[in-house]
Amino acid sequence: MVQFIGIREIGMILRRIGPEAFLTGLVDYLEEDFHRWSAFEKTARLASHSARGVIELMPTSDGETYGFKYVNGHPDNTANGLLTVTAFGVLADVASGYPTFLSEMTVSTALRTAAASALAAKHLARADSRSMAIIGLGAQSEFQALALKAVLGIARLQVFDIDPVATAKFQRNMRPYGFEIVEAGDIAGCVAGVDVITTATASKSQERIITPEMVAPGMHLNAIGGDCPGKTELHPDILRRARVFVEFRPQSEIEGEIQQLGPDAAATELWRVIDREAPGRLSPDDVTVFDSVGFAIEDFSTLRYLKDLATRTGLSRDIDLIPDLTDPKDLFGILERASEPRSMRSASAFAEQLA
Amino acid sequence: MVQFIGIREIGMILRRIGPEAFLTGLVDYLEEDFHRWSAFEKTARLASHSARGVIELMPTSDGETYGFKYVNGHPDNTANGLLTVTAFGVLADVASGYPTFLSEMTVSTALRTAAASALAAKHLARADSRSMAIIGLGAQSEFQALALKAVLGIARLQVFDIDPVATAKFQRNMRPYGFEIVEAGDIAGCVAGVDVITTATASKSQERIITPEMVAPGMHLNAIGGDCPGKTELHPDILRRARVFVEFRPQSEIEGEIQQLGPDAAATELWRVIDREAPGRLSPDDVTVFDSVGFAIEDFSTLRYLKDLATRTGLSRDIDLIPDLTDPKDLFGILERASEPRSMRSASAFAEQLA
Repeated sequence: MVQFIGIREIGMILRRIGPEAFLTGLVDYLEEDFHRWSAFEKTARLASHSARGVIELMPTSDGETYGFKYVNGHPDNTANGLLTVTAFGVLADVASGYPTFLSEMTVSTALRTAAASALAAKHLARADSRSMAIIGLGAQSEFQALALKAVLGIARLQVFDIDPVATAKFQRNMRPYGFEIVEAGDIAGCVAGVDVITTATASKSQERIITPEMVAPGMHLNAIGGDCPGKTELHPDILRRARVFVEFRPQSEIEGEIQQLGPDAAATELWRVIDREAPGRLSPDDVTVFDSVGFAIEDFSTLRYLKDLATRTGLSRDIDLIPDLTDPKDLFGILERASEPRSMRSASAFAEQLA
Repeated sequence: MVQFIGIREIGMILRRIGPEAFLTGLVDYLEEDFHRWSAFEKTARLASHSARGVIELMPTSDGETYGFKYVNGHPDNTANGLLTVTAFGVLADVASGYPTFLSEMTVSTALRTAAASALAAKHLARADSRSMAIIGLGAQSEFQALALKAVLGIARLQVFDIDPVATAKFQRNMRPYGFEIVEAGDIAGCVAGVDVITTATASKSQERIITPEMVAPGMHLNAIGGDCPGKTELHPDILRRARVFVEFRPQSEIEGEIQQLGPDAAATELWRVIDREAPGRLSPDDVTVFDSVGFAIEDFSTLRYLKDLATRTGLSRDIDLIPDLTDPKDLFGILERASEPRSMRSASAFAEQLA
């Protein structure tokens, strides 16, 4: 049997422990895996491109546990009432090769992206940061707000989106969480005076949402929305003047903001800062940028966390994705053992004969 | 919602329509996809190797539908009462990137391997073939017997395994299917006089299970067991003298029997025969070999077939692997909508509080 977390369970787990506690715990799991970065097998994601989008498989392994995520990216889906990104993930036991855990990751990827931003901000932003601007109030925005509140103590939000419906949704969803929320009239007004800037727009090309004159000394920037070739959010001069941090450099050079700078871009992998191999912020006046694109190890940490949460809360189902055989040579015997249970969803179809 | 076929459903589907009809239908789906071979995206499988085995992701796409299989190979698992191979697969819609179908493939991979052998034999073996030798009576053997019976009309089986328990299991499982079954005392006796030889041993090194003097003119060989680097079953001189057919040459040169011959091996991709681009058997005296290692397109055909069968028989479940949102920008709203249903398997755990 394989442990399964569906949409039902992820919602129940989040409601049970609360999104802030969930995110704080997830940041701990991420930090643990960033500390042992070199233990992981790191391969490029396997991408299948089409005219409308991309479908990717992102595997990794720490030698004991193997994990992978299925994820798509289809920018035009929203116009059809669909999510631009859906995802699910699997953990398996390296010693036996058996899958042990299957989880939804559409919601969890949003949570892990926010937790990764919070982990970066914890190590890069000024410790006295209390205010944050969010440009782009789509699916990722609430998760970013709560993660930075939980980990960094962000209390004041300045927000902006070109879509008033998205802004209203953000306000409605964030009402219970005690933020001071200011709606800005434009991007420059939104970022004025804040400690942290988060860009999470659905940028579809090389946008320059943030320009150098908007950036004040001491700010930390989480650039979330630019995450594939040709999609960026920051003016390149910001990157040239700031201290820039990435997840996995070979991937970020292709997919991140630093794609604008070419192969000589100055950028440090975040795990080196967490592992004290490289400095993060050097002075309160530094501008720091976390150029986030998402990496397989972050999904691995998330799956590990979800599996532990499922076990601790009992909020999971078992599904028969893999046979449980008494005789491993007798796969054929499954025909004899299969019985049609009385209470199946599709029971009404039993009368049908195969055409 | 994603359509799901678990171990329960695959057993029910097989019992409902019978394994021979199942295999005949699967051969048709395979043949259809072999006919449009060039329409598929073909990439190397993504493998994660460890001391005990390998875990692989095998994706492909025909431009409309994307599919991948997770599969492991752990030769020592049987000693621990586990299967050497477990697998599951997914189909997704290329246009939206949404996964649509999840299925067990541990049983289905055995079925597709047998169906691929039957498809090859249909195009390569003598049409009057009625007898088959099976060397190795493990998890794959019954599926091979039934597929070759259904597609080629095999009626007489000569079988051999070093393990009498495996032989007894094979006899027991095959009793209802009307074969004439002869247990041979050794491999030479097993293959004597047959039209088709199937080798499906758990060879762990470069074995020479079949040697040239055992092979008579007109025979067709399905070499199933040799399917990764360093694992082969046939003496290389058999390959040098026979007409050899493979699935996807770049993969077979590494994993198949032809790894013994080096890069200049004479071997034809089977789809060319099916598509009448290349000849198969030229005379009744030819010896033909299908050097089978398994390829992603075969898994794609199998998933396509299973999804159609699930729809036709109603034997599937829906699982909430992906959210069904009214507002795709409001992923966070899933917290509000999640309710804890009364009748959950883990209901007893509800009282628990998170530590």
